[in-house]
Amino acid sequence: MPTFVHGVGTTMFGKQPERSTAELVWSAVGEALRDAEVEKVDAVFLGTCFGEPGIAQRALHRMGITDLPISIFENACASSTQAFHEAAAAVDLGRYDTVLVVGVEHLTSRFTGAIPVEQRDHEGRTGLALPALYAMSATRYQELYGLTAEQLAMVSVKNHEHGLLNPRAQHGAKVSLDEVLSSRLIADPMTLLQCCAIADGAGAAVVSRTRRTSRDVTVAGSAMRTGGLWDHRSPHVWGFDLAARTAQDAYVAAGRGIEEVDVLEVHDAFTIGEIVTTEALGMCPVGEGGRLVESGHTRLGGRQPVNPSGGLLSRGHPLGATGAAQVAEIVTQLRGEAGPRQVDGARTGLVETMGGGAGGVDGNACVVTVFSA
Amino acid sequence: MPTFVHGVGTTMFGKQPERSTAELVWSAVGEALRDAEVEKVDAVFLGTCFGEPGIAQRALHRMGITDLPISIFENACASSTQAFHEAAAAVDLGRYDTVLVVGVEHLTSRFTGAIPVEQRDHEGRTGLALPALYAMSATRYQELYGLTAEQLAMVSVKNHEHGLLNPRAQHGAKVSLDEVLSSRLIADPMTLLQCCAIADGAGAAVVSRTRRTSRDVTVAGSAMRTGGLWDHRSPHVWGFDLAARTAQDAYVAAGRGIEEVDVLEVHDAFTIGEIVTTEALGMCPVGEGGRLVESGHTRLGGRQPVNPSGGLLSRGHPLGATGAAQVAEIVTQLRGEAGPRQVDGARTGLVETMGGGAGGVDGNACVVTVFSA
Repeated sequence: MPTFVHGVGTTMFGKQPERSTAELVWSAVGEALRDAEVEKVDAVFLGTCFGEPGIAQRALHRMGITDLPISIFENACASSTQAFHEAAAAVDLGRYDTVLVVGVEHLTSRFTGAIPVEQRDHEGRTGLALPALYAMSATRYQELYGLTAEQLAMVSVKNHEHGLLNPRAQHGAKVSLDEVLSSRLIADPMTLLQCCAIADGAGAAVVSRTRRTSRDVTVAGSAMRTGGLWDHRSPHVWGFDLAARTAQDAYVAAGRGIEEVDVLEVHDAFTIGEIVTTEALGMCPVGEGGRLVESGHTRLGGRQPVNPSGGLLSRGHPLGATGAAQVAEIVTQLRGEAGPRQVDGARTGLVETMGGGAGGVDGNACVVTVFSA
Repeated sequence: MPTFVHGVGTTMFGKQPERSTAELVWSAVGEALRDAEVEKVDAVFLGTCFGEPGIAQRALHRMGITDLPISIFENACASSTQAFHEAAAAVDLGRYDTVLVVGVEHLTSRFTGAIPVEQRDHEGRTGLALPALYAMSATRYQELYGLTAEQLAMVSVKNHEHGLLNPRAQHGAKVSLDEVLSSRLIADPMTLLQCCAIADGAGAAVVSRTRRTSRDVTVAGSAMRTGGLWDHRSPHVWGFDLAARTAQDAYVAAGRGIEEVDVLEVHDAFTIGEIVTTEALGMCPVGEGGRLVESGHTRLGGRQPVNPSGGLLSRGHPLGATGAAQVAEIVTQLRGEAGPRQVDGARTGLVETMGGGAGGVDGNACVVTVFSA
């Protein structure tokens, strides 16, 4: 039985230290409920990574959403993508009729700089931070496949330009290849503009198993897998195996493959992430991700735009809010309501999120969901 | 379709700063898998309150449990009770055949003293800590129903004596009424021996929808509700309304009522909690909870023993591990394998956990599950 998305909502994304976590929830949930035109939901599934205990009940009780089952999922960057995946499954299995999905994260109240890596892991003990781990993947990838620094940087140019068309993005900007390459070096080859920033935000969606209006978007298929993200035994870099396997599951569930997908939101926390993910999703052969972005295939106006919202790099990446924001973007695209960043004629969309764990060395998950208009 | 528990496991409970969170998981999960005699599970549902992001995947990957869906639930003190509740539902709905449930918390690495209350809530702003909030409930309850200080303290005497029979309890001890009453005053009328302590621990259980052996225990019915724990508009104290409503749901789901329950594990983080909960579960009329414990009805040897494991007060209360440990105790009791603390002829058991939120003022949940031999 298919499930349907009736409404979505998000906050602005960016540093919002003056707003509480609850305020972010109220804003995104209010918008999603108004968009869905529902008064009542049967359950709430909320994703957050660093949210304080009980944040869902605390925030929702104060907006009158109480006396119903509330589940809080933690799955690192994929927390609310998993919440959405679980909500779609619960609706599909007939457990609940209507479920409210929420994702929220208030990173500025938790971290002043980069999110630390778990010190008890070997990467943490050797002093590696997340940008360094991604940088090592990028370096290995460059060695294996000849990916150039310019191709990597093109992901940032593209996504920042997309973000310029998204009024809720943290960092929409027209940046040149030179500006990306000459921005401050964080971990070679990752320069500042190739790394997502600390942000706060929330997103929400309402799903049920009954089509209500022509604006409803169908959840065609969804899959989640857990595996070893930084599994050093794999011949592939950064989560390729896990993303590829999860995508295959999602394509089987949806009964359609990558060639039918018109628009995608994927996990580009660092530029190398988008390169590897586009390959893992089957958009091009392994090793061709650099040439794919260079060709214009994945930019707005291209054949399969990737991250029209600006992605994690430009819309922003408040961990637990990211999945819900990705879903909101794809739903908006498939409704044809994305305004200046609309992908013409988009009928099928895809969301992919990699949950790396904050300390996340060998703990991680991937969620891939396919939507249709 | 009923679901079955095939195996359970726990660690020792108590302060274990020298063990990592992962080590606690390995210990409890290893025991549960051996007890269940299963080699493979289809999904993992783990509950934790303050566990670091990705703890489930990180710990389980290293014991070879990977490449399967893992969900991490946060629901304050009820985190792993909810994980168990969700696992039973997933099995019941046919989503998974066999699910591994885990609860874990390593509090000593997070807190040196009492768990702080969220400072942005009004209780936090006015300087109230959790013992103070429970103490206020107790004071109001004493005023309303004439509960005596001695009756309150009897809960502690009973549960510490039960804990003496549980080799994995944090604080098993023969303590007198005078010792409880004259222990250090934490928040009047809560003395030290009426408050649970900081602890580390883990628990695990394996559930599926196929009965395998005569040692399997049946999940007869389970319910979860979310509400306003410290809702100051209620005429009742500490979570009475929420626990009573959740219990009613569970009784309907199980097709049996409190009069058929032979043994219970309930949320006695503070002595007043057990008093109010026994009333909310319907073991006696409102206001009679003090006389109920005084009568011996709820001690080992009584008609309906409550917290034979020692409960949160004596076994210990590592938040996210508590629900799994409660489940492990009831399963052990219904198998007739509880040794010196065995409730003779126990055929029906009940677990109740209140998830108060660490800052938990008006964010909370209650889970009630009924089991049968």
